[in-house]
Amino acid sequence: MTGTIINGRMTDCVASTDRGLLYGDGLFETIAVVEGEPGHWQQHLQRLQAGCARLGIEAVDELLLAEEYRQLVDGAGRAVVKIIVTRGPGGRGYRVPARPAPTRILQLHDWPDLPLACARQGVAVRMCDMRLGHNPRLAGIKHLNRLEQVLARQEWDDTGIMEGLLLDSGNHLVEGTMSNLFLVRDGVLLTPDLQRCGVAGIMRSQLLALADQLSINTEVCQLGMADLQAAEEVFICNSLIGIWPVISIDDRKYTRGIITSRLQDLLASETEPGWQWRT
Amino acid sequence: MTGTIINGRMTDCVASTDRGLLYGDGLFETIAVVEGEPGHWQQHLQRLQAGCARLGIEAVDELLLAEEYRQLVDGAGRAVVKIIVTRGPGGRGYRVPARPAPTRILQLHDWPDLPLACARQGVAVRMCDMRLGHNPRLAGIKHLNRLEQVLARQEWDDTGIMEGLLLDSGNHLVEGTMSNLFLVRDGVLLTPDLQRCGVAGIMRSQLLALADQLSINTEVCQLGMADLQAAEEVFICNSLIGIWPVISIDDRKYTRGIITSRLQDLLASETEPGWQWRT
Repeated sequence: MTGTIINGRMTDCVASTDRGLLYGDGLFETIAVVEGEPGHWQQHLQRLQAGCARLGIEAVDELLLAEEYRQLVDGAGRAVVKIIVTRGPGGRGYRVPARPAPTRILQLHDWPDLPLACARQGVAVRMCDMRLGHNPRLAGIKHLNRLEQVLARQEWDDTGIMEGLLLDSGNHLVEGTMSNLFLVRDGVLLTPDLQRCGVAGIMRSQLLALADQLSINTEVCQLGMADLQAAEEVFICNSLIGIWPVISIDDRKYTRGIITSRLQDLLASETEPGWQWRT
Repeated sequence: MTGTIINGRMTDCVASTDRGLLYGDGLFETIAVVEGEPGHWQQHLQRLQAGCARLGIEAVDELLLAEEYRQLVDGAGRAVVKIIVTRGPGGRGYRVPARPAPTRILQLHDWPDLPLACARQGVAVRMCDMRLGHNPRLAGIKHLNRLEQVLARQEWDDTGIMEGLLLDSGNHLVEGTMSNLFLVRDGVLLTPDLQRCGVAGIMRSQLLALADQLSINTEVCQLGMADLQAAEEVFICNSLIGIWPVISIDDRKYTRGIITSRLQDLLASETEPGWQWRT
């Protein structure tokens, strides 16, 4: 079950002059599909449009995108849809063309093999050596410049390690290579602020809102290794995995705590049946 | 005069699953072609291979690349060849495929319109507001994550401004959006060290070597705005423009000095006749 629609056409061919390829000049979204329906469509679209605005790329036609989504997932049950928007073809040189024609790519992917045990028993993760550079202009959005994540993911091969956590060049906690990070300390749910680097995940926003519903205090703030070491609970999240409790970071052990469990339960109850992260 | 060869085939089609597009997971080189011959071929190849090694991409077959270069430029006189090497197609996720098959792209472009006056009378440049983030793992190589340059280049539209200069997140001088930067102070040729960010240009290396030939003292070091303000001479360089003296940075004026001129003369004398940067 795969397929690609580029600018409305069933093709898998992108011009080698596309600025998405030349410079990573674009954005993407990774959307969970359950029984043909996209999870958090509005939130993904909103972040995509915010990214376009930040990079100065023309806003995406949301109706068109929704039509193409329907065409692509037709008949698919559980799957992943990746949306990529680039500034489109250009000549040589960083300067944006006078009249850019953005490229709109929708890819249908198989649902990944996410062991149910990861959500139930939790996962082992590691600290990465690579540090994320600061760039407030690029922070928060899901742009196509992802070499830092690629390099970080190359740091381990052990299939027992499910994620690598990243510090920035100032040694502040930021996120995982493919997930956002939450800690619980003194009963407060903490997550790194992403003003200087990192991707502001859709699941991260949703969990901050769910915590409010549960009257759990939350704080988005600057965090470091000392906070991680003092944490009572740690978990990672994204749109596909939902919440994975962290049970070890290198040699340090953690246990799934009550706040993590309550958030997992509420997330499952608010989600269509059959989601992978139901515990 | 344009054309593209991808993995040995005359095509302009890259798969939308190519990690060059998905993550900017690759490298590029921009090579000046004069009378069919590539300028600094060995140096470009060397940097390309160093970039591949840094990212963990298989080394490029240099003989194959040279053959494809010949096939591409056949009949072309003055032109630009852009070489792009990516990690090749992959699935979703940052993890590198078990057996990656890199993508090798050669593009033939027209020689750009570089006014001769730029080399002779010098150019006006500006300081960019955007700051380059630090990442020593990515510094120096010419990778495909170029959103910082794209954003910086969007800061001005004035066609009289030929380049924007960039500071890093620590307010150190780094380079131009498409060029490297040199200053002269007390007769010493200075250029920013690129340990934390920036692209180590082929022309930058060559000019450091030419300065040695001319017994001009050189220093690769950390530089800031104060150094720029105190500079007697300022110039920018790259493989296509050669050397462009800087005659203004925002409101501050400079004049082409003796060291800039001597380097321009030596560069011209060591280069095939007809190069744009001959003064």
